[in-house]
Amino acid sequence: MRRVRLGMVGGGQGAFIGAVHRIAARIDDRFELVAGALSSSPDRAAASAAELGLAPDRSYDDFAEMARAEAARTDGIEAVAIVTPNHMHAAPAIAFLEAGIHVICDKPLAATLAQAEAIAHAAAASPAHFILTHNYTGYPLIRQAREMAARGDLGEIRLVQVEYAQDWLAREVHNKQADWRTDPTRSGAGAIGDIGTHAFNLAQFVSGMAPEALSAELHSFVPGRKVDDNAHIRLRFEGGARGMLWASQVAVGNENGLRLRIYGSEGGLEWGQENPNAMAFTRFGEPRQILTRGGPGLGGGAGRWTRVPPGHPEGYLEGFANLYADAADLILGSGDGALLPGIEAGLDGMWFIDACQRSSAADGAWIARQSGSVR
Amino acid sequence: MRRVRLGMVGGGQGAFIGAVHRIAARIDDRFELVAGALSSSPDRAAASAAELGLAPDRSYDDFAEMARAEAARTDGIEAVAIVTPNHMHAAPAIAFLEAGIHVICDKPLAATLAQAEAIAHAAAASPAHFILTHNYTGYPLIRQAREMAARGDLGEIRLVQVEYAQDWLAREVHNKQADWRTDPTRSGAGAIGDIGTHAFNLAQFVSGMAPEALSAELHSFVPGRKVDDNAHIRLRFEGGARGMLWASQVAVGNENGLRLRIYGSEGGLEWGQENPNAMAFTRFGEPRQILTRGGPGLGGGAGRWTRVPPGHPEGYLEGFANLYADAADLILGSGDGALLPGIEAGLDGMWFIDACQRSSAADGAWIARQSGSVR
Amino acid sequence: MRRVRLGMVGGGQGAFIGAVHRIAARIDDRFELVAGALSSSPDRAAASAAELGLAPDRSYDDFAEMARAEAARTDGIEAVAIVTPNHMHAAPAIAFLEAGIHVICDKPLAATLAQAEAIAHAAAASPAHFILTHNYTGYPLIRQAREMAARGDLGEIRLVQVEYAQDWLAREVHNKQADWRTDPTRSGAGAIGDIGTHAFNLAQFVSGMAPEALSAELHSFVPGRKVDDNAHIRLRFEGGARGMLWASQVAVGNENGLRLRIYGSEGGLEWGQENPNAMAFTRFGEPRQILTRGGPGLGGGAGRWTRVPPGHPEGYLEGFANLYADAADLILGSGDGALLPGIEAGLDGMWFIDACQRSSAADGAWIARQSGSVR
Amino acid sequence: MRRVRLGMVGGGQGAFIGAVHRIAARIDDRFELVAGALSSSPDRAAASAAELGLAPDRSYDDFAEMARAEAARTDGIEAVAIVTPNHMHAAPAIAFLEAGIHVICDKPLAATLAQAEAIAHAAAASPAHFILTHNYTGYPLIRQAREMAARGDLGEIRLVQVEYAQDWLAREVHNKQADWRTDPTRSGAGAIGDIGTHAFNLAQFVSGMAPEALSAELHSFVPGRKVDDNAHIRLRFEGGARGMLWASQVAVGNENGLRLRIYGSEGGLEWGQENPNAMAFTRFGEPRQILTRGGPGLGGGAGRWTRVPPGHPEGYLEGFANLYADAADLILGSGDGALLPGIEAGLDGMWFIDACQRSSAADGAWIARQSGSVR
Repeated sequence: MRRVRLGMVGGGQGAFIGAVHRIAARIDDRFELVAGALSSSPDRAAASAAELGLAPDRSYDDFAEMARAEAARTDGIEAVAIVTPNHMHAAPAIAFLEAGIHVICDKPLAATLAQAEAIAHAAAASPAHFILTHNYTGYPLIRQAREMAARGDLGEIRLVQVEYAQDWLAREVHNKQADWRTDPTRSGAGAIGDIGTHAFNLAQFVSGMAPEALSAELHSFVPGRKVDDNAHIRLRFEGGARGMLWASQVAVGNENGLRLRIYGSEGGLEWGQENPNAMAFTRFGEPRQILTRGGPGLGGGAGRWTRVPPGHPEGYLEGFANLYADAADLILGSGDGALLPGIEAGLDGMWFIDACQRSSAADGAWIARQSGSVR
Repeated sequence: MRRVRLGMVGGGQGAFIGAVHRIAARIDDRFELVAGALSSSPDRAAASAAELGLAPDRSYDDFAEMARAEAARTDGIEAVAIVTPNHMHAAPAIAFLEAGIHVICDKPLAATLAQAEAIAHAAAASPAHFILTHNYTGYPLIRQAREMAARGDLGEIRLVQVEYAQDWLAREVHNKQADWRTDPTRSGAGAIGDIGTHAFNLAQFVSGMAPEALSAELHSFVPGRKVDDNAHIRLRFEGGARGMLWASQVAVGNENGLRLRIYGSEGGLEWGQENPNAMAFTRFGEPRQILTRGGPGLGGGAGRWTRVPPGHPEGYLEGFANLYADAADLILGSGDGALLPGIEAGLDGMWFIDACQRSSAADGAWIARQSGSVR
Repeated sequence: MRRVRLGMVGGGQGAFIGAVHRIAARIDDRFELVAGALSSSPDRAAASAAELGLAPDRSYDDFAEMARAEAARTDGIEAVAIVTPNHMHAAPAIAFLEAGIHVICDKPLAATLAQAEAIAHAAAASPAHFILTHNYTGYPLIRQAREMAARGDLGEIRLVQVEYAQDWLAREVHNKQADWRTDPTRSGAGAIGDIGTHAFNLAQFVSGMAPEALSAELHSFVPGRKVDDNAHIRLRFEGGARGMLWASQVAVGNENGLRLRIYGSEGGLEWGQENPNAMAFTRFGEPRQILTRGGPGLGGGAGRWTRVPPGHPEGYLEGFANLYADAADLILGSGDGALLPGIEAGLDGMWFIDACQRSSAADGAWIARQSGSVR
Repeated sequence: MRRVRLGMVGGGQGAFIGAVHRIAARIDDRFELVAGALSSSPDRAAASAAELGLAPDRSYDDFAEMARAEAARTDGIEAVAIVTPNHMHAAPAIAFLEAGIHVICDKPLAATLAQAEAIAHAAAASPAHFILTHNYTGYPLIRQAREMAARGDLGEIRLVQVEYAQDWLAREVHNKQADWRTDPTRSGAGAIGDIGTHAFNLAQFVSGMAPEALSAELHSFVPGRKVDDNAHIRLRFEGGARGMLWASQVAVGNENGLRLRIYGSEGGLEWGQENPNAMAFTRFGEPRQILTRGGPGLGGGAGRWTRVPPGHPEGYLEGFANLYADAADLILGSGDGALLPGIEAGLDGMWFIDACQRSSAADGAWIARQSGSVR
């Protein structure tokens, strides 16, 4: 099967998530990276491009030029990965969508609601696909959990407990990653945007339930910090289920503690990202079972979305790669992308961020979700 | 050292917590059970007393008679364990306090605020001690955690995440234990009273911080249930710390999942009741350490509150027994009972229950704690 | 039910295992301790007796006098717990057996084969019972595992992997516990006697299979140590199963790591003593299940041998207490003691020690077990 | 940095380990696969090559032709991955070594000692490198452990406990993977070759100690099986350390349970492959620490051999990729390959297999390792 021609915006030297996207695109050999506007600094852009083996004429100083030039080439890129800070998602996303080039964009969708809505409009008007890399949905057991919830293994879902705890911002810290994430003009939010949106997305993705309202308390513990570094959130779902979401970047001892627990009238599921190859499943009144990636008892294509047998752990990069593999299938017409987060997941996340901020400002007042609008 | 003469109210045949109290009192051989009003049914009271080897003349049909008679004997009981349902705590507690007999009472303090206040007044007027068996405070590593928090190992405490998840009430169930616990006239509350108060107490006991306000969402998932079976609670502590408390009796797959996590500016602690002999402690920027009961690195009397060496697990009963051992020391004058929960912890718990109910009725409004009053 | 009158030999101040036996006897209130020869030092014996509340006339300076005197009393002890160092088991055991008093003896049976055989002869000639406290057989899930093995849940058993790792003797250490255990004249052996016999016993107890031969390599890592502190052993069982046993007291980081894994043609079981309330069970081709003490899926009297519900951990002392409870039932005629290790388990253990020493001296030669003889 | 031109022998459609090698080579973008003799069946070879995007003229029907043709091209492959069954390693390895092309060969080295020695001679005579993919040495924490052992964090090493437990051969099974592995003419051995060599290699790699002798008991549990499916092995190391190795493919409930524990006079390390991002380290007398991949406390280049931050799990493929990345460095002259297993590790493994078979045939007799010879 031929490989999809891919470009990248952002992700130059020193970047974290750009390198992750490149590995994820490479693992299953479904993409070839052929163009980039890798940095807003022309020197760094060129140096980064050389390092990655891009042809010099396909290393661009700016994304707009890149969109134009690539759209004009017969061998131009078919898709672009946007891996810039949040406030720099909208402009390139719109440019590439308008050029008919598929967009694979890092999360959250944008730094502001206005930016998010602009992307949404561009996506609606474009024949190209828009994919948002809520990468944790790519873990095989998360997709398994979603199927189990959908087919009723949990009965009627009552409770969603989700948390995302880190500690790398427990003190004031300055580096490329921390700086833009704690600058509200570039990130739009703190923990709720950077990790809370992942947790919120995962809760919906697995439970299949839409949130109806939330109530939040945001807090900044580190002196001088301008964005939230801890969030305590209650959720109400359609149909009466309840949820709790904790996101923190100051929970000392936690590296990347994304954990999801879902309980229904008939069963419960528990999964944690740091050991993603196992998931606990309990049917009421029976012993707890440990389901493993690719292992027995998964009821159906146990080997889907995995590359190696059970007991040979896959991790973060392979989960991320599953999104890229699905994206390749979608782009090449061999898949429907049904599991890929898109513009709607992005708008959900923007609503989540905005509603958290408004609720917290109103001492935890419940903020309802109007369907069809970001606010 | 001589043994304390103990009586018991409640705890007849078929009871759960009464048997637990008796084992806890026996483990360290600091008490002898010599009298009881073990059941409100005279036949069951007598049969239960015979089974326990009580002298027939010290098996009473009612607690009031027991209090009078025992107070009049030179070899009368020095302490009484009250192990009845919540709504039956106040009357015997007051009777024994008035008789000058120490009271060891199961939690929560009472089924109503009025009952709780009546007990508090009786305790204030009595020379006898009042001890509330928030037994989870008896776990050695919980006491260790309290010391670590107090001496600053965590730095300034920022976050308290506490949860207590069970699943035994995930369906409608009828038995002696379930019946009174789900009957609001006997229990006063559901999950928040039965297990939420333990979680709330533990959060305070370990962190050493007083709650300032809470915001709660209570829910009953099982059709027809008259009390809450799930609670999502946010906490604000004096000094700015924040907390989250989840209590549930419908979380399928959880047996007795009491879990406490505390994070400060310098470190984090994580402990779970189901494997109580280990606790994770992380100093910021250092590897996570696993502290074990009686093991190395505890900084001080590592062997306190334990009976067997590290690696020989102690459990629920030994933790409970630590409260009884402390009570014996207090009663016999060889200890100050500083770690024992008492009337204040009981009133805190009653405030917690009441505030949860009022907050939930007001859609999660914050309920402040007025110091010195139950409400 | 009335309590069994119990005496104790050894277990005076400063002893470890004596205190454990007393708590174990007390937990279920089936015994009352009324006599003792608690120390070979008369002063310490008297002081220890006073501390335990024994009547002064029932504190003896020597066990022989105690056996005579107690046998002569109408209210004399019915059973005696022998908790002395290994080389001091035989003499008191024989004295009490000859006096018709039941013996509850700590393991291993003796320090030498000759002592062991003498006890065996005395036991055979006595109407009294002889019970050896291989206490780990008292854990509810170990008894569960035995049942599962017996009823074929594992299919034909192929493999027994058992290990017992500690680290408290990783360096030269001097204290009451270490001194006699590392003195071959008092202990008879090092790690193989102190902990290896437990592992060996557990392997047989759960698998229901008798060992046919073993091959051992013993080693002393700590300079100057006169007994083994590490043992690597291979086992052959009747019927063709194979086993591996590792016992070590120098495995740094291990507190009391007794772990048993059994694999058959149809399933596998894994259990570890440090978290004894859970056991993994896998049927071939199905997900791993986590069985919990008293929890669902145990197939039969789930609540046997436990005192508190699942999720309320029981530990080492409760497991030990199960042996005492069974002993009380046996002595009082209300149970058959079928699960209690006795003289045969003791002789098995002595064979194990001796065979390990002979095999290791012969560079790992296989030593066969002649049925019916110690060697 | 330019990419190394890579060829592959074996690894056509339906193969397992060939696909793994390709992903491993791709993850860090250090190789491009440009040629292959992917199957001994010409049709399958061509179809597989097309699927992988190889130019048709570089898909060969046989490895010998491939070695000749590629060596003759100016753009010929610089390295070849040999991923055939064991008995098919020697011929292609020798052909490519003689052609001056670097060889990256799957383990074990060969199916027979004679084959192994032939490879060794070819390697000695060739300027090309020979790399054996004992991939578990690529896990970052395994390399960390090796450094810790080497710099004395464990003190003098006393004990190496290593095990590798699987269950996929617990019954008779027929598929491409199982068939050749259980055919002695193609594999040369059963569990000891397929997984035991990994365990043996890891023990040496981390401890830095050479084995001096071993004693083994091999067994076949599944009726009709012609190779061992379980092995119980004792090891003696230079300097007096001892070891135990268990390899099994019939341990029901184990997927890929490779586990290493090393204990010295000053500390202990424990690591398991199924959760490879954490490792327990205990200094004697201190609490156990949990070291994490890329996390704090690793003492030195914490970020080496990893791609994503701590808490973002890497797995089997990333560990494997570390060998390929090192191989690329070695081939391009930017690294010395010091951590790469080579011909010596291969011969060690062959000695291990042969010695196990001879020892087991001799009822567990100790087989010494003559330095410098395979036997």
